[in-house]
Amino acid sequence: MSPVTFEIKKRVHGTRARAGVIHTPHGDIETPAFVVVGTKGTVKSIKPEDLETYVGNQVALSNTYHLYLQPGDEIIEKAGGIHTFSNIRTPMMTDSGGFQVFSLGAAFGKGVTKFAKSDVSDQIEEGLAVYSKDLAESQGRLCVIDEDGVTFTSHIDGSMHRFTAERSIEIQHRIGADIIVAFDECTSPSAPYAYQEEAMERTHRWAKRSVLAHKRNHDMLGKQGIYGVVQGGRFLDLRKKSAQTLSDMDFDGFGIGGSFSKDDLGDSLAVVNDVLPEDKPRHLLGIGEPEDIVAGVHMGCDTFDCVLPTRLGRTGTIYIHTHNGTGKLNLRKSEYQTDLRKPDEGCDCYVCTHYTRAYLAHLFRSHEMLGAHLASLHNLHFIVQFTANLRKEILSS
Amino acid sequence: MSPVTFEIKKRVHGTRARAGVIHTPHGDIETPAFVVVGTKGTVKSIKPEDLETYVGNQVALSNTYHLYLQPGDEIIEKAGGIHTFSNIRTPMMTDSGGFQVFSLGAAFGKGVTKFAKSDVSDQIEEGLAVYSKDLAESQGRLCVIDEDGVTFTSHIDGSMHRFTAERSIEIQHRIGADIIVAFDECTSPSAPYAYQEEAMERTHRWAKRSVLAHKRNHDMLGKQGIYGVVQGGRFLDLRKKSAQTLSDMDFDGFGIGGSFSKDDLGDSLAVVNDVLPEDKPRHLLGIGEPEDIVAGVHMGCDTFDCVLPTRLGRTGTIYIHTHNGTGKLNLRKSEYQTDLRKPDEGCDCYVCTHYTRAYLAHLFRSHEMLGAHLASLHNLHFIVQFTANLRKEILSS
Repeated sequence: MSPVTFEIKKRVHGTRARAGVIHTPHGDIETPAFVVVGTKGTVKSIKPEDLETYVGNQVALSNTYHLYLQPGDEIIEKAGGIHTFSNIRTPMMTDSGGFQVFSLGAAFGKGVTKFAKSDVSDQIEEGLAVYSKDLAESQGRLCVIDEDGVTFTSHIDGSMHRFTAERSIEIQHRIGADIIVAFDECTSPSAPYAYQEEAMERTHRWAKRSVLAHKRNHDMLGKQGIYGVVQGGRFLDLRKKSAQTLSDMDFDGFGIGGSFSKDDLGDSLAVVNDVLPEDKPRHLLGIGEPEDIVAGVHMGCDTFDCVLPTRLGRTGTIYIHTHNGTGKLNLRKSEYQTDLRKPDEGCDCYVCTHYTRAYLAHLFRSHEMLGAHLASLHNLHFIVQFTANLRKEILSS
Repeated sequence: MSPVTFEIKKRVHGTRARAGVIHTPHGDIETPAFVVVGTKGTVKSIKPEDLETYVGNQVALSNTYHLYLQPGDEIIEKAGGIHTFSNIRTPMMTDSGGFQVFSLGAAFGKGVTKFAKSDVSDQIEEGLAVYSKDLAESQGRLCVIDEDGVTFTSHIDGSMHRFTAERSIEIQHRIGADIIVAFDECTSPSAPYAYQEEAMERTHRWAKRSVLAHKRNHDMLGKQGIYGVVQGGRFLDLRKKSAQTLSDMDFDGFGIGGSFSKDDLGDSLAVVNDVLPEDKPRHLLGIGEPEDIVAGVHMGCDTFDCVLPTRLGRTGTIYIHTHNGTGKLNLRKSEYQTDLRKPDEGCDCYVCTHYTRAYLAHLFRSHEMLGAHLASLHNLHFIVQFTANLRKEILSS
């Protein structure tokens, strides 16, 4: 039996929402859950004990691409795996590396996100589409995809590297997270239908190879579960086909990857989740603003990850509760220098009960690292609890 | 009775060393003790709970000059004082602002420290001596001293400000630390005898005015103790005279400030501490490398502060135990990338029991803030425990 299993505790009639538990070797994850991001084996500015005491997350995600380049998967394995190396004690996931190969390779600095801009044709004209080797090379960063894998340059020193399905899985075995992810190609939101289809079919072939590579490693097979990644861009028929194809493979859960249009995120997820097996967990990769999480949970997703809580925190922006939901507050605005109110008046986290807006504003204005730390703690607590509250609503519905 | 009192628990025969307890409104300080520095109302990268859990310091020092400029003493007072504003719950001290007016004013960027360089005449030739208005202005930063006080430019925005004894005490009343310090002039190590004497006499007049200003504020008199600062540079007769003059004033303790020659730090402290009243605590201002603390304790000093533990930590250097004492280790060296040993093999602090050199090296190479945080935690724990061990040695001698 796989070391990663899923149990549904409650379904909400009339929606796809469900509350469940993912069992992993490092503990249970009660879903819906927000997965904090620790790209390089550290949740930026926050040590693991702070996550346990002040955030309450149940799981963290690190990036295979980053850890492979620095410090290298071999030293992590030698240290006893990512949990020992990083001192993070909750369950952990690693992604496949596919998204970073793309976003830090040819698409870097082009403003490409997981959401298509309103006018996709503009993006194509601006050269954001990354389906041409010539185009990628002209940007000084290489990301060349062939049937067998991807050749790319490091964003750190420009050195050449190659990922294949087998290599991605090998690296993830060495890193040793509880949940690993099949190697996939993350296409640009602006890629046209023909390319999305081609890339998706290739991702399916890589998925099959990833499962085989995972099953060959008997040491890690009992310690790690593997997720497949549904692709297909913004095209619903491709999304459906991708979900169908991956459902037939031996995965313990599914990532839903690639790009969406913000307006029809819900539609895409509905199509995918109607096909994916109900008894396996579904992770929406790299998307996790409050409104996205609400939409995702409603459409049947179980877990979410996003760098925004810490990225916003480092630049002085915190999530807050508002009359009609959630909002953001930029502590760098001059008005907060003398504002002795709680950072988020609707929050009882450690930061909001021990500090004022004026103090946090002082830290950011003084370039004191503690500002980034405290704002990140609050933002992670905010989004983790926001998602946990959706679970409570499901359970009490 | 003053809210800050001192009790001697044990003296060591044949030396000036003593172990004692300083009683303050926010708790006791068992001496000898290292005072962690929180310049701007935050110990860089470390929240107060981390100090309590991982460092174990008993007292922290903030800088009047910095807090006055940003966020301003008025908002700190409005917030309920520095303890409420910063969430630091241990006893706190503020300095007088005199040292920063000097070191961030005319002397900024000239490499001036509390220790005279080996060849003092070189420093005078290089323009490090700051006893000429013209000289200071030629450096683009102003620091003009007159009988009544100091006019200086802010290191943040170049705006003009003025400190007098009364103003320094007023600001320190608003900040609200347990121990405040009389306004003093911190001279350059390279200033000649005549100037050192003139500056010292002026500091004595400011000390008298500081005590009077403190006594006039009945609200804070019961909440804060006040220290006078012994000056006199590297001249033993001036040091002795300064200690004698200040001993006759109504201070609760004494700071020993200004500049020393590293070789005769011990001699200076011996001369001063033989004169200062035995029943009052003595704080060596801004000096606190391990060897300095040993010398200071031996010569009868009780408390020490220094920015080095956090400054070194932020750049990847940690204190370590060596065969014959203490040393430093630079985690940025390439050899530590694959070194799975404890950061300091002779240390049982949180950092050394939960992380390897390889992980810390990875954090510094990846520009991850957690590296600075963990190295600072270790260094502060190291120096706080190093000083606490000197206390234990005295008590068990």
